[in-house]
Amino acid sequence: MSDRPFIHDDFLLDTKEAVELYHGYAKDQPIYDYHTHLPPQQVAEDTHWENLTRAWLYEDHYKWRAMRTNGIAEDLVTGSPSGGAADDRARYNAWADTMPHLLRNPLYHWTHLELARYFGITDLLSPKTADKIWEIGKEKLAQPNMGARGLVQQSNVKLICTTDDPTDTLEHHIKIAADPEIDFQVLPTWRPDKVLTVDTPETFNAWINALAQATGQEITSYETLLEALKNRHTFFHEKGCRLADHGIDTFYADPYTPSQLQRTFNDARSGKAPTKEDLQAWRSACLYELGILNHSRNWVQQFHFGPMRSNSTRILNRFGPDAGCDSMNDLSHAVALSRYLDSLDKSDQLAKTILYNLNPADNHMVASMIGNFQDGTTPGKIQMGSAWWFGDTLHGMEQQLEVLSSL
Amino acid sequence: MSDRPFIHDDFLLDTKEAVELYHGYAKDQPIYDYHTHLPPQQVAEDTHWENLTRAWLYEDHYKWRAMRTNGIAEDLVTGSPSGGAADDRARYNAWADTMPHLLRNPLYHWTHLELARYFGITDLLSPKTADKIWEIGKEKLAQPNMGARGLVQQSNVKLICTTDDPTDTLEHHIKIAADPEIDFQVLPTWRPDKVLTVDTPETFNAWINALAQATGQEITSYETLLEALKNRHTFFHEKGCRLADHGIDTFYADPYTPSQLQRTFNDARSGKAPTKEDLQAWRSACLYELGILNHSRNWVQQFHFGPMRSNSTRILNRFGPDAGCDSMNDLSHAVALSRYLDSLDKSDQLAKTILYNLNPADNHMVASMIGNFQDGTTPGKIQMGSAWWFGDTLHGMEQQLEVLSSL
Amino acid sequence: MSDRPFIHDDFLLDTKEAVELYHGYAKDQPIYDYHTHLPPQQVAEDTHWENLTRAWLYEDHYKWRAMRTNGIAEDLVTGSPSGGAADDRARYNAWADTMPHLLRNPLYHWTHLELARYFGITDLLSPKTADKIWEIGKEKLAQPNMGARGLVQQSNVKLICTTDDPTDTLEHHIKIAADPEIDFQVLPTWRPDKVLTVDTPETFNAWINALAQATGQEITSYETLLEALKNRHTFFHEKGCRLADHGIDTFYADPYTPSQLQRTFNDARSGKAPTKEDLQAWRSACLYELGILNHSRNWVQQFHFGPMRSNSTRILNRFGPDAGCDSMNDLSHAVALSRYLDSLDKSDQLAKTILYNLNPADNHMVASMIGNFQDGTTPGKIQMGSAWWFGDTLHGMEQQLEVLSSL
Repeated sequence: MSDRPFIHDDFLLDTKEAVELYHGYAKDQPIYDYHTHLPPQQVAEDTHWENLTRAWLYEDHYKWRAMRTNGIAEDLVTGSPSGGAADDRARYNAWADTMPHLLRNPLYHWTHLELARYFGITDLLSPKTADKIWEIGKEKLAQPNMGARGLVQQSNVKLICTTDDPTDTLEHHIKIAADPEIDFQVLPTWRPDKVLTVDTPETFNAWINALAQATGQEITSYETLLEALKNRHTFFHEKGCRLADHGIDTFYADPYTPSQLQRTFNDARSGKAPTKEDLQAWRSACLYELGILNHSRNWVQQFHFGPMRSNSTRILNRFGPDAGCDSMNDLSHAVALSRYLDSLDKSDQLAKTILYNLNPADNHMVASMIGNFQDGTTPGKIQMGSAWWFGDTLHGMEQQLEVLSSL
Repeated sequence: MSDRPFIHDDFLLDTKEAVELYHGYAKDQPIYDYHTHLPPQQVAEDTHWENLTRAWLYEDHYKWRAMRTNGIAEDLVTGSPSGGAADDRARYNAWADTMPHLLRNPLYHWTHLELARYFGITDLLSPKTADKIWEIGKEKLAQPNMGARGLVQQSNVKLICTTDDPTDTLEHHIKIAADPEIDFQVLPTWRPDKVLTVDTPETFNAWINALAQATGQEITSYETLLEALKNRHTFFHEKGCRLADHGIDTFYADPYTPSQLQRTFNDARSGKAPTKEDLQAWRSACLYELGILNHSRNWVQQFHFGPMRSNSTRILNRFGPDAGCDSMNDLSHAVALSRYLDSLDKSDQLAKTILYNLNPADNHMVASMIGNFQDGTTPGKIQMGSAWWFGDTLHGMEQQLEVLSSL
Repeated sequence: MSDRPFIHDDFLLDTKEAVELYHGYAKDQPIYDYHTHLPPQQVAEDTHWENLTRAWLYEDHYKWRAMRTNGIAEDLVTGSPSGGAADDRARYNAWADTMPHLLRNPLYHWTHLELARYFGITDLLSPKTADKIWEIGKEKLAQPNMGARGLVQQSNVKLICTTDDPTDTLEHHIKIAADPEIDFQVLPTWRPDKVLTVDTPETFNAWINALAQATGQEITSYETLLEALKNRHTFFHEKGCRLADHGIDTFYADPYTPSQLQRTFNDARSGKAPTKEDLQAWRSACLYELGILNHSRNWVQQFHFGPMRSNSTRILNRFGPDAGCDSMNDLSHAVALSRYLDSLDKSDQLAKTILYNLNPADNHMVASMIGNFQDGTTPGKIQMGSAWWFGDTLHGMEQQLEVLSSL
């Protein structure tokens, strides 16, 4: 109840020790961000945003979710078909209406941290302050250092790893690397999730075609598919990639046979979804081979597991995936996770690995699992990733640190 | 360690802010209790209780459970076959013996809150104080304002929603509504769980017969069963019901065919339990149709999910269900829950919904699930219910608030 | 940030009440340790350890796990093939290198408690203090009261229950009981887990052969196997055993037939693993019969459930089981656990029972399950065991106490 603004220099630093550790040690450390979804094109082109709606609301499904929960109609959430400047302002207003209801939500912290640190605004966003903040926002965003590059530089970021499909040309990464004015690195991350989508042949086939084009090779079998992946893995490595990321619902480590894999490939290519057993086999084989590839180049592999995606058919049909209709699943992961890691470890082909569980109910399991496959070659070879997505809250981070440090 | 009694004006209010919020805002708010198991007959007849055993121990399986845990024999828990006044006193004594062992259990808080607020007793119940409290209890309970109605009125309750089977005549609700002396509302809640019990044909058939009687219609098929439910849904609506409640072990959203449903109906009617697959199909169909009904009348639907009931065959055979032998299950709910909500949402027929999970291990999953189906029509259309039953403890409520507000 | 050493008289006692309860009541209580893995041979022979490596690192897979996580090679973890004194010192150094990284881990607390209480050392173990602590350790360990017996006596332990296979001769227990110089009791605990291992016939058959030898009876059938177990149960009872312990991945309570059990026995004896269904049936039958046996002698039965063992084939092949490659599983236990307890309770043959869940995600389920089967014969007949193994941390113990006391 002091006169300090909500965001101040000691925000969240509740003890003397916290203040000392943050200001004395952490604050001036450069940031090496090894997992982001930042589009590299925005850096390559130094994207600027005209107003706060474009910076905040055009792409952020966290905010969309919060707005829908607050009873905001879809036209103001993901935008009306007409769009335009009036639409931008109306969407911003809807966001300003929503903000006061988000107390304790990390969106409340993030929004006000952004306003304070990049816009010099310590007012809390609400309908009362919306006008003023809109105007300051426009003014500030027009400054040269408030584009994609300027924001990264202001944040003392030295390295960004983006998230990229194997079919990607990496043209933006190449352009950034060649640009002498950019004083931070932007490296690709290998994210080959689409190879697992044989259960939705339309998605799978579009991706196989794109992969064939990217490699200039025909893909007519499971074997040639693996060849194409290997080819792109090499290409990514040449462009500086040292990191894989696998976004999966759960792990797969079932037995499989070559003929089963070929049948599944053929079925998917002719538009036919596999049986449940063939799907398990396919995913087990692909994840295993991807693990082998990652190890062969001494990459670090990340696994983000546990989401259930696109739960609302209504929103999926209107907007597509990643529209704020994903949530946590509650599957059992431990057996498959253990078998998967062991399948690689037993031939000494387990790469450095980071496991990110989405559901905090899995924290203890994961924190105890990583200990099984430490092999003494390097400290922390197998790691539990920091709290992520729905866990990326004050409470979620505290829980993850508590469990990890206890175990 | 102060001289204040255990229950005092600031009980559980540990900060200045808590005191201000409670005394300045919350305390004088009227109570609209939209989920109770209060028998409406007790209000209609203004039931009075002769002593604390009748008020506390005749119907409260929470207390029975605690007493059994304390080594109290069943005759003193649910009562001896002979019963009578001596029995009442012996059961009360057993409860007083148990009380000091319940420190930190919510029964300890509830019992002492009741003694302080309704009986003016700030002594802690124990064998030492049992005599005195028994006498004061008898004396107070004899007062006119200490019956069912008086206790509700003293508590500043404006609305009670009971929990009622579709076969119920709602006679007590009708009587209460017509009684000008009752200045609070008692409305029914539609709880049609028995339609799911085709796996115990005896229960199912007794219920179908009662439903046929209540509607005056023959029920010879799945279709006529739906008709009968619709008929009673209308009747409940006419009597003021605006709320459904579904007590389920988990959600069901499997595919089904009309012939499968009819076969399952016929089987159950002839005393035959369905296959597991038919049971899943039956429950999926019924829950879907109930959701459609709830939406059609703009009701709010509640789902209380996660218990495993009547675990002890010994107690079930002696006493029947709801005898304090229920506990939390640990099933995976997310996939079926998502599919169920989506099946209604995709045709814009998802009613306002409250999800109550019993096992706190599901808190994060549920708190993230509700965000998927917010449709922007009203703030908080899909809600996570407050901590319930075994979660209805200081710790359980704090956990639920922590997770919900973070997400 | 005071000048007090890390371990001091009020270690972990953060409130005035905690200090009063510990120093005024708890500290001088004798210890009755009803679950340990202490080898009784060490007491019988009053084992002494030459140095801290032998005391700390020869058998402790908790420490091995931590060392591997810190990047220590296997030769320094479980020891090099050559071994010897140089090896002991090198392993100790590797442990001292690891220690500073374990802040917040219970190994940090345990190690420094041991150094302070038994060695009078309040320095923190690190590469800097390693030499000094090694020397003091050797000196102290050479004292007569620093062997297995002396350490137990210094700790004010009155009773130790070890963990013993039914084939064990209990020779060390017999010797200890006959030794007038030993002023504490060492009793066996019946741990017949190997009877469940029909899925690994090699293990099972070696054990059956040992059991046949221990009883002097041929074991040719499921029925004669039960006879042999009963025979050993009697022998353990005669040697003072009053306690069973069952280490299981989960509970089993499926239906079974005599012919199915006999088939499974025959298959395993001829080296053939059972079908999944037969395995479930076998384990259900054995656990049921073991529960009946435990009840027949009025023993307390413990169930330690939830681990997934020997996850790393690499370490299993090199070292065998119990090498620090076990972790928490995330199975659903509630249905089988309930059915198992009910199968015994419904004929009044459920022994006093303690349930230890490994994964804290199961805390609420277990804390609510125990209430179902309290039968009023004794306070706390069915108990939730204290936090165990990976849960045996400050955080894990607090969580278990919080949940248990709330429910």
